[in-house]
Amino acid sequence: MPISLSSTPMFSRIISQSSSRAFSTSSALLNRCIVYTQNGDPAQVLSAITYPKLPSPPPNTVNLKFLLSPINPADINTIEGVYPSRPKPTSNIATSGLGSQDQPVFVGGNEGLAQVVDVGEGVQGLENGDWVVMDQPQLGTWSTSRNVPFHGVIKLPASGLTEAHGATMTVNPTTAYNMLDGFVKLQEGDWVVQNGANSAVGQLVIQIAKERGLNTINFVRSRDDMGPLVTHLESLGATKVLTYDDLNDRSLRSKIKEWTGGQDIRLALNCVGGDPTTAMAKLLGQDSHLVSYGAMSKKPLSLPTSLHIFKNLTSHGFWQTNWSRTHSRTEKEELITKLAEMMKEGKLKAPEHTIITIGPQVSDEEATEKVRSIFAEMAEGKFRKKVLLKLEEPAACA
Amino acid sequence: MPISLSSTPMFSRIISQSSSRAFSTSSALLNRCIVYTQNGDPAQVLSAITYPKLPSPPPNTVNLKFLLSPINPADINTIEGVYPSRPKPTSNIATSGLGSQDQPVFVGGNEGLAQVVDVGEGVQGLENGDWVVMDQPQLGTWSTSRNVPFHGVIKLPASGLTEAHGATMTVNPTTAYNMLDGFVKLQEGDWVVQNGANSAVGQLVIQIAKERGLNTINFVRSRDDMGPLVTHLESLGATKVLTYDDLNDRSLRSKIKEWTGGQDIRLALNCVGGDPTTAMAKLLGQDSHLVSYGAMSKKPLSLPTSLHIFKNLTSHGFWQTNWSRTHSRTEKEELITKLAEMMKEGKLKAPEHTIITIGPQVSDEEATEKVRSIFAEMAEGKFRKKVLLKLEEPAACA
Repeated sequence: MPISLSSTPMFSRIISQSSSRAFSTSSALLNRCIVYTQNGDPAQVLSAITYPKLPSPPPNTVNLKFLLSPINPADINTIEGVYPSRPKPTSNIATSGLGSQDQPVFVGGNEGLAQVVDVGEGVQGLENGDWVVMDQPQLGTWSTSRNVPFHGVIKLPASGLTEAHGATMTVNPTTAYNMLDGFVKLQEGDWVVQNGANSAVGQLVIQIAKERGLNTINFVRSRDDMGPLVTHLESLGATKVLTYDDLNDRSLRSKIKEWTGGQDIRLALNCVGGDPTTAMAKLLGQDSHLVSYGAMSKKPLSLPTSLHIFKNLTSHGFWQTNWSRTHSRTEKEELITKLAEMMKEGKLKAPEHTIITIGPQVSDEEATEKVRSIFAEMAEGKFRKKVLLKLEEPAACA
Repeated sequence: MPISLSSTPMFSRIISQSSSRAFSTSSALLNRCIVYTQNGDPAQVLSAITYPKLPSPPPNTVNLKFLLSPINPADINTIEGVYPSRPKPTSNIATSGLGSQDQPVFVGGNEGLAQVVDVGEGVQGLENGDWVVMDQPQLGTWSTSRNVPFHGVIKLPASGLTEAHGATMTVNPTTAYNMLDGFVKLQEGDWVVQNGANSAVGQLVIQIAKERGLNTINFVRSRDDMGPLVTHLESLGATKVLTYDDLNDRSLRSKIKEWTGGQDIRLALNCVGGDPTTAMAKLLGQDSHLVSYGAMSKKPLSLPTSLHIFKNLTSHGFWQTNWSRTHSRTEKEELITKLAEMMKEGKLKAPEHTIITIGPQVSDEEATEKVRSIFAEMAEGKFRKKVLLKLEEPAACA
């Protein structure tokens, strides 16, 4: 049976792709999630399992129906067992077999958009039909349905967002926003420099900086035809787009000085590492901050000690999971609201994406094969867009 | 004429080596300073010049007699022209020749102990006979006498300090104190790790940490006979002394865990750079800080980005000159007072040192030759102690 690459119409009444939020108890349906029992290559260790309808949510929990959940690079590392944030094992979705007390599983997925379907006793501020995003890491968003603590989710505004916006809200946009906000007190007209500017976070940095009136110098890998990329990043609001090769150009410093009017650049964002990052750090002025959130080159961050000592450069890391751990619920709600507003106003675009739907008529074996093949293709670099997973409740006869 | 390597008795009445502070107007004497007119190898570009008695200090300045001034590694870099802090040219100590308006000079020396000899109009809080240290960089401390703004110096306590204490107060002890104080809120019993533990600053870190009830793990280069060095550092208060080779020992982590009782180490001090520093950074726990104040290996600081991102490691530089620039006079006076108290109580030893005296009977040519030879010998690593320069007023007939 073929697996559809777009949402099947069967349950479109229930799982609305638009922002109108139809709601159904749909008690006859089964559930499905993507799990693993040991770390390894996702293309080998992931399985789809079907599990029965969950019991009504216990006190202080809500039952969620997941609408759309991304497969992020960190999810792969998590499954491989090389990511510091790990899911807790799940043993309460089945009475026997995988997902039961005898055979706990790890449910994949850290980020995602869900709809509240049922509300347990004591839950405050959430109602059936609300769209929510995850406020706790590794809740297992590659599921059709989970019962989760109500303080583990944050409510989205009532309308105006697409599912793709909601599904990709809590990792990349928050990272971009917080890196621009948390290290240097930037004023309108200030300059920020970043590498990996074409990454998902990089593109969000450009858009949020633009919205804040900040100028960005954006470094990307050079390619044969730079035109379309430059045009795209400029359309998002990039002030300047340069390549890592330009970092070797001796005239770069004077060019930048001309652009900035001699003003010091005090914030650099890095997801690359290695030599281009060293060169980028040297463009920074006195009392500046280098914030690293990735290491795509897999090379360490190497900085001349003199930059630290004499220019008072501080080198930080940024991890949204850690930010979340150390900030109040109010701060997190405010942040999500701000980002959602920017999205509604068209100032923050959802990432280019492909939605992979696993429909109701697909067997667990077929779903497993499909999911594994997606990861195999991702490892080969086939998808150049964000992959969003839409799991639909399997029909009882599938 | 030989140059004495200890203080000549001739002016011992005036320049007391003890803490009794005799004072004389000594109007008949000339002055001397060590200068350069262009950057280069100190063993080639430095000259001693003699200049007449200075006029009475202008309003808001004091006339200082320098008692003892160190030759610090940074002084060498300054003369070479590779240090970011540079002296202003001096053109008002002679009416013609070097040091006059026609031939401005750079007077060497950043740190030093001086005695107030005359006080200009408007000066507050300073009297003749007071001992002072420099609160502004590059005031030209390799001089017998300078008029300097009174807010450019900080008064020391009235008694109990040796000249060597005072002469070496404002660079290394302040650096050690501020690195232990300014980055992590440490409590008694906490652990700090450092490399270059045998350096001047490293030894001060050990003593100040000991005084604050902090434990230190101290890394040094391994040598054939470790015994005396370990004994020495332990006598200063080092909790543990290890070598850079120990960083390759797989059991080190569990050994340290045993020592600390599993408590995270959150502060590392680095003056080395290169691989041993990378390895040392990996010993740090969550939310820790690596503070670099030197790069003796001349290798950059290379850190896995994951330490920044997932362990929230922050990498800083520390430069006392910058600290001084960004802190209030009150804060600086408090710091100097604290350090002076620790010195008086015997809790902070003056560095092992050699005093090089250039006496009153030495001609400028001889003094120049002597100073240059000191720097040539320092470059060869001959002095393994701090070199302190004692310039005495040249006799009119020298």
